[in-house]
Amino acid sequence: MSSAGMGTFYGVGIGPGDPELMTRKAVRVLTEVDWIFHPFETRTGTSFSRRIIAPLGLPEAKFRQISLGMSQDRMPDQHTYATAVDEMVRELRQGKSVAWITQGDPLFYSTFIHLYAEMRQRFPDVPIDIVPGVTSPSAAAAAAGVPVSLLAEKVAVVPAVYGLDTLPALLEDFATVFLMKVNTVFDQLLETLATLPYKVQSVYVEKVGTPEERIVTDLPTLRGQKLSYFSLVMVRQARPAAALSTPEEEP
Amino acid sequence: MSSAGMGTFYGVGIGPGDPELMTRKAVRVLTEVDWIFHPFETRTGTSFSRRIIAPLGLPEAKFRQISLGMSQDRMPDQHTYATAVDEMVRELRQGKSVAWITQGDPLFYSTFIHLYAEMRQRFPDVPIDIVPGVTSPSAAAAAAGVPVSLLAEKVAVVPAVYGLDTLPALLEDFATVFLMKVNTVFDQLLETLATLPYKVQSVYVEKVGTPEERIVTDLPTLRGQKLSYFSLVMVRQARPAAALSTPEEEP
Repeated sequence: MSSAGMGTFYGVGIGPGDPELMTRKAVRVLTEVDWIFHPFETRTGTSFSRRIIAPLGLPEAKFRQISLGMSQDRMPDQHTYATAVDEMVRELRQGKSVAWITQGDPLFYSTFIHLYAEMRQRFPDVPIDIVPGVTSPSAAAAAAGVPVSLLAEKVAVVPAVYGLDTLPALLEDFATVFLMKVNTVFDQLLETLATLPYKVQSVYVEKVGTPEERIVTDLPTLRGQKLSYFSLVMVRQARPAAALSTPEEEP
Repeated sequence: MSSAGMGTFYGVGIGPGDPELMTRKAVRVLTEVDWIFHPFETRTGTSFSRRIIAPLGLPEAKFRQISLGMSQDRMPDQHTYATAVDEMVRELRQGKSVAWITQGDPLFYSTFIHLYAEMRQRFPDVPIDIVPGVTSPSAAAAAAGVPVSLLAEKVAVVPAVYGLDTLPALLEDFATVFLMKVNTVFDQLLETLATLPYKVQSVYVEKVGTPEERIVTDLPTLRGQKLSYFSLVMVRQARPAAALSTPEEEP
């Protein structure tokens, strides 16, 4: 079918938590669209995304909540994505514009990717506009005041559950490693950090940009605590001061 | 000296190029501060950062241009950073607020890191607020419509000049690799990609978010062309469709 008269599907990154870290484009798109779809968050019972955009004062009637079923083994419910896409396409075909909001960036560890793939595959003519957002690693580094990378340095982003065992090897090559969602493997991370043969700078950042933000540089003090799902640890090679004088080209 | 009465030093990320990708906080800070310092860009003779924030219509008198000298071997001129910091501290001590603007994110391959280190070391009492920004990798992925990462996937960011030789090994472990500033090693990159024993999806993105934005998926067509300094190549493991069904936890 032709895309004439069809509304645009927006994937909108609303940043990691602080409403001020939304982009101007995110604000414009969310103000202009007909519908804002967002996931119902079964884990928390509330909607973190809704809280981030609350200061925009958008009308309640504009929001549509989608329950993304997760089966017990946490496999995604492909049927749910298909159903969500069907629901959005019904609106798009009537010329209505639809936004799907995601914390952080829509293409960076986000459910939007599933909806996007489903939409592209089944409805290739739907116009899609993806609005990038500030990621939690960027916000965490800024909140902690720790540089991510200078000219020659490499950066790795690794889901903690899947990459903790590779951390020592990564730190040989990467100046900064972000371990995402460290909550379930935190004590194991402490052990790994303790056995590194070189010094690193580590910082734990939880719920960055929210009133509950927590930044902890003495990681062992967190041992045994229940940590947030919205958490990451930034590990940076401890460099001599001279490393900050690495040649840097001015963009 | 005490920080009482001292102005705040802001490191403000203004995003990768599209003025709409500035955050609300960046807009507020740049509107409110007394001074906006920015580098004079000797390479281009213009100021890319000034162009990004032009739509804000800020008064010309608010801007202070700093020439960051680069010697011929492209080592940074530490003296220049020291001088820039001195100039900013003179204002901060009079209670004036000062912003340093950087494209993208202030802690991600940015000159701000040098100024920040210098400021922290010599004037530890200066209040500093770092405003994260959308990075060029996020914007490039959005513009190209290519997912960066799902739940279990790892992401690497590598300056092309320093990491091209490691690309084949990285792609064994990282779902997505961003090669930053590929312009000087592009033909070599083509050779590397051609010899990979597995299929990858590659996209070249230049000046993302600007009117000169260029997105090229057939990389060999760029062979021998003069490419922009503001360029990156995103390389993603080509996965079976099933990979998009990787379990994803809803944030």
